Amino acid sequence: MDIKMEEIENALGYKFKDKNLLKLALTHKSATHSNKNCYERLEFLGDAALELVVSKYLFVNFPDLSEGELTNIRSAVVCSQTLSDVAEKLSIKNHIIFGKREKMEKFNENKFILADVVEAIFGAIFIESGFDKLEKIIVNLLKPYIQKAISGKLFYDYKTKLQEIMQREGQKEIAYKDYEIIEKKYFKSELFVDDKKVSEGYGSSKKEAQQDAAYKFLLKMGEQEE
Amino acid sequence: MDIKMEEIENALGYKFKDKNLLKLALTHKSATHSNKNCYERLEFLGDAALELVVSKYLFVNFPDLSEGELTNIRSAVVCSQTLSDVAEKLSIKNHIIFGKREKMEKFNENKFILADVVEAIFGAIFIESGFDKLEKIIVNLLKPYIQKAISGKLFYDYKTKLQEIMQREGQKEIAYKDYEIIEKKYFKSELFVDDKKVSEGYGSSKKEAQQDAAYKFLLKMGEQEE
Repeated sequence: MDIKMEEIENALGYKFKDKNLLKLALTHKSATHSNKNCYERLEFLGDAALELVVSKYLFVNFPDLSEGELTNIRSAVVCSQTLSDVAEKLSIKNHIIFGKREKMEKFNENKFILADVVEAIFGAIFIESGFDKLEKIIVNLLKPYIQKAISGKLFYDYKTKLQEIMQREGQKEIAYKDYEIIEKKYFKSELFVDDKKVSEGYGSSKKEAQQDAAYKFLLKMGEQEE
Repeated sequence: MDIKMEEIENALGYKFKDKNLLKLALTHKSATHSNKNCYERLEFLGDAALELVVSKYLFVNFPDLSEGELTNIRSAVVCSQTLSDVAEKLSIKNHIIFGKREKMEKFNENKFILADVVEAIFGAIFIESGFDKLEKIIVNLLKPYIQKAISGKLFYDYKTKLQEIMQREGQKEIAYKDYEIIEKKYFKSELFVDDKKVSEGYGSSKKEAQQDAAYKFLLKMGEQEE
């Protein structure tokens, strides 16, 4: 086996029975001629598995949080920033298999791709060893992020904050106009207050892009520190 | 035990060890003074569990589908329409515990609430008996919907269809402006083509509202039959 893959396994605390599955989770689509031979399908699965693990952890450990609070904290935990931090811990960077051109363009530094690969690895563990095994691994990796989110250091729901401020100012209408930038795999969201565009944000999901747009407008209004 | 609850258990093929958990899954917030004594937290959990079960089923059974196809089919399967159909099968209607006012207003007929309760029941089974048990129950209930989605009878991705048509017509810009109608618990999405509003749609998620808006505009253009 590739020595690099062993490094990832050691950091995960998990040995893959099928090493090709880990290799698939590390393969960017630029390295293959088919969507099926890259990490994307595993990422689809791992993303859903990660959501459920974090949902269960929050549900069980925080019986006093409402559905809305649970949802907000889960979004704060399951985001590209957390996952690219995890990618760092797992030494994934530099081990992703790219096509030549992309390698030169330093896709390796792209935190969205790092986050996708982490999800794909979770998907691979889930399909190979089931939910309970994956749960242990994810809880172990993400516990510090969940605790930060709960204690409010990581978590900030800018959309809610903005809504509260706008309501104080007399029911201004807020709307988000979302764009999916498919080529580059990110989302852009424009924030409108009373039909006037006031800011725009970016992220790896619509939710993140909207939070970013709300954050930027809060900054502009002086309601938020950087 | 309440005879009504037994009816639901028989339809599910699952006996709750803790009958209070099923009761919680059936309790609308109008019947309680606290968000924690209604189905909402269980719905949060069940929603994520349902996504993972369907994701795994599609991943395992359709190795030739791309991530994008898997995502589209999953959205077609996991929607209020499917879940309110399932609610019908499980005889959930009329067994939901409402506050008096809401009962009179026939919330019982609201398909979004029916869908939420089904998710809450899934959440309750997951927390009581784990992923593998829930998986069997959901696959059993949803298999016909997944098969319909795959064979294209249920599934129609209007957003993609619209995008393809607009591209044929020379790169018109499409944007969705989303509103969350919190009070009534649904989403509204306005569809803009080259900055001109052309339609609006409604649904229980942003995704559904955007699909509905795209569908309505396709109808208008005569590109889609009702």
